[in-house]
Amino acid sequence: GEKLKIFALNSNKPLAEGIAKTVGVELGKSSVSRFSDGEIQINIDESIRGADVFLIQSTSAPVNDNLMELLIMIDALRRASARTINAVIPYYGYARQDRKSRAREPITAKLVANMLQRAGADRIVALDLHAAQIQGFFDIPVDHMMGAPLLASYFLQHHLNEGAVTVSPDHGGVTRARKVAEFLKTPLAIIDKRRPRANVAEVMNIIGHVEGKRAIIIDDMIDTAGTITLAAQALKDAGATEVYASCTHPVLSGPAIDRIQNSSIKQLVVTDSIQMPPEMKIDKMVQVSVAKLLGEAIVRIYENEPVSPLFSIQHQ
Amino acid sequence: GEKLKIFALNSNKPLAEGIAKTVGVELGKSSVSRFSDGEIQINIDESIRGADVFLIQSTSAPVNDNLMELLIMIDALRRASARTINAVIPYYGYARQDRKSRAREPITAKLVANMLQRAGADRIVALDLHAAQIQGFFDIPVDHMMGAPLLASYFLQHHLNEGAVTVSPDHGGVTRARKVAEFLKTPLAIIDKRRPRANVAEVMNIIGHVEGKRAIIIDDMIDTAGTITLAAQALKDAGATEVYASCTHPVLSGPAIDRIQNSSIKQLVVTDSIQMPPEMKIDKMVQVSVAKLLGEAIVRIYENEPVSPLFSIQHQ
Ligand SMILES: Nc1ncnc2c1ncn2[C@@H]1O[C@H](COP(=O)(O)O)[C@@H](O)[C@H]1O
Ligand SMILES: Nc1ncnc2c1ncn2[C@@H]1O[C@H](COP(=O)(O)O)[C@@H](O)[C@H]1O
Repeated sequence: GEKLKIFALNSNKPLAEGIAKTVGVELGKSSVSRFSDGEIQINIDESIRGADVFLIQSTSAPVNDNLMELLIMIDALRRASARTINAVIPYYGYARQDRKSRAREPITAKLVANMLQRAGADRIVALDLHAAQIQGFFDIPVDHMMGAPLLASYFLQHHLNEGAVTVSPDHGGVTRARKVAEFLKTPLAIIDKRRPRANVAEVMNIIGHVEGKRAIIIDDMIDTAGTITLAAQALKDAGATEVYASCTHPVLSGPAIDRIQNSSIKQLVVTDSIQMPPEMKIDKMVQVSVAKLLGEAIVRIYENEPVSPLFSIQHQ
Repeated sequence: GEKLKIFALNSNKPLAEGIAKTVGVELGKSSVSRFSDGEIQINIDESIRGADVFLIQSTSAPVNDNLMELLIMIDALRRASARTINAVIPYYGYARQDRKSRAREPITAKLVANMLQRAGADRIVALDLHAAQIQGFFDIPVDHMMGAPLLASYFLQHHLNEGAVTVSPDHGGVTRARKVAEFLKTPLAIIDKRRPRANVAEVMNIIGHVEGKRAIIIDDMIDTAGTITLAAQALKDAGATEVYASCTHPVLSGPAIDRIQNSSIKQLVVTDSIQMPPEMKIDKMVQVSVAKLLGEAIVRIYENEPVSPLFSIQHQ
């Protein structure tokens, strides 16, 4: 379609190119650069009047810069008479600040939702939001896609599900892990973290049978990789033959890469929701792309068709 | 007052401390730090329920980080039941993106105004906004303070106005320069930049008499210092005996410090609206503080008194 336009901001251009390829369009002509003092300067170099515009931007690190790029671009598109502005946010930053867990905490995930709407977004396409409740922070439609089926497909294609057990790293992830276990036709295990007494290290208790099996851990994001590497060790200690780990969002900050490198994880399977610098791509890491998943969602949204239920749960 | 609270974010703590001292209160207990992945983490370590809170934050470089700190803090304060939230923004970033000068440009100064209001700010205290129209971007009260009287006072105290001419570096700054000229009892000159033909360097024409006089240039901000150093040279070429330059906001990005160092500017007088790292404080630079100006404004706002007309133009 002539009036479907896809623009990439700076956080994840390779993914944006993959998405445009799936959709069968060229990326829109624009540049997002900096003035001398660091302020964001945006140039949109083609008319977008009357177009349905899809903006691809992960609000990964540097999160504040990437978020402001997105907001400023939305402002520019709205003033330039785009018909609809659809923010495709493969990784939604600040998603863990989604509730007050202590007094006087902000709820930054809601603030970000308000900012996106105030700037002029008409729709959000998200991928594995840390908490599904974040969809309710928006008054505009949110298409919430899932990365787990892609990760599961990787394990299936490589026949790694044979003799395996799917593992949820915590109780919050059980629903996701159960679906993957069903898809992979494996049993399910859950890691139950407990602090026996105050000021004593957490103990990882494994609920379910892992001995003699290949453990496949499935998670939404890995940040500093502390939990996942401890979980891998606990699985090994409980007799798992090898441990595969997977997640949708490779945040991988601070000590993460070192920890994974030195851990008992045999392979880490992640998506490209967050762009990684080459030096972070260690041998034991495999990336599967969400370009086709998001590209197909964009085409369906543009054509007013329901977004594929296999890969998404749609909300309004 | 018990219910007046001042909090500093990270952009300009020395100024915030100066303001708190003027007001006669301690800075509120809070910390603004980063999670491992760079997301902003805010802790407010005292009750602010029912308080009139003043937040001191310049949205200077790194502008996106400083702006997000301010927005997230406003969100946290609102959720913690502050009575009013007053954002004191000594330097308002993105102020130059205040209109569409080309097709498909954003108006980021308005976007920022919308974000501050959506987050929950009740009032803005600003200093020398690049364009006074930015006040109209807000639907909440804006107290717009001026730095020029402070800069002028410096020249008066040091008897630098004797035998001097006050210079506006462009036509947009004439109103400010005229007021300063009246205050200093000097004549006024204006620098008239013109491009004789396309693709030919700008020529600086001086309107007014500067020969044999000390030139005092007064501006709102100096960013890369290209214009101000060329203006200083033009004034010297026209026979000015020495050139003093002054501005409210020392943005001073990129080549600015080198240019000023190597220019014919004898002394540069700036305010502390933007915090400068020590290595930028060259010998020929003098800083005057806006702490008293902003502190007095805060007390007056808190006590529902009009903000001092000498130093401010009040709106709304
Ligand atoms: N960027 C971040 N990195 C680490 N922890 C965070 C981050 N953002 C929020 N949190 C904290 O993570 C907790 C929520 O995480 P979760 O229990 O996994 O939903 C809250 O206590 C937050 O304060
Ligand atoms: N941070 C910035 N640094 C340099 N120029 C800018 C910046 N922000 C906006 N501008 C441009 O500055 C011009 C407005 O400046 P002025 O004419 O001084 O109001 C516009 O053309 C803007 O595109």
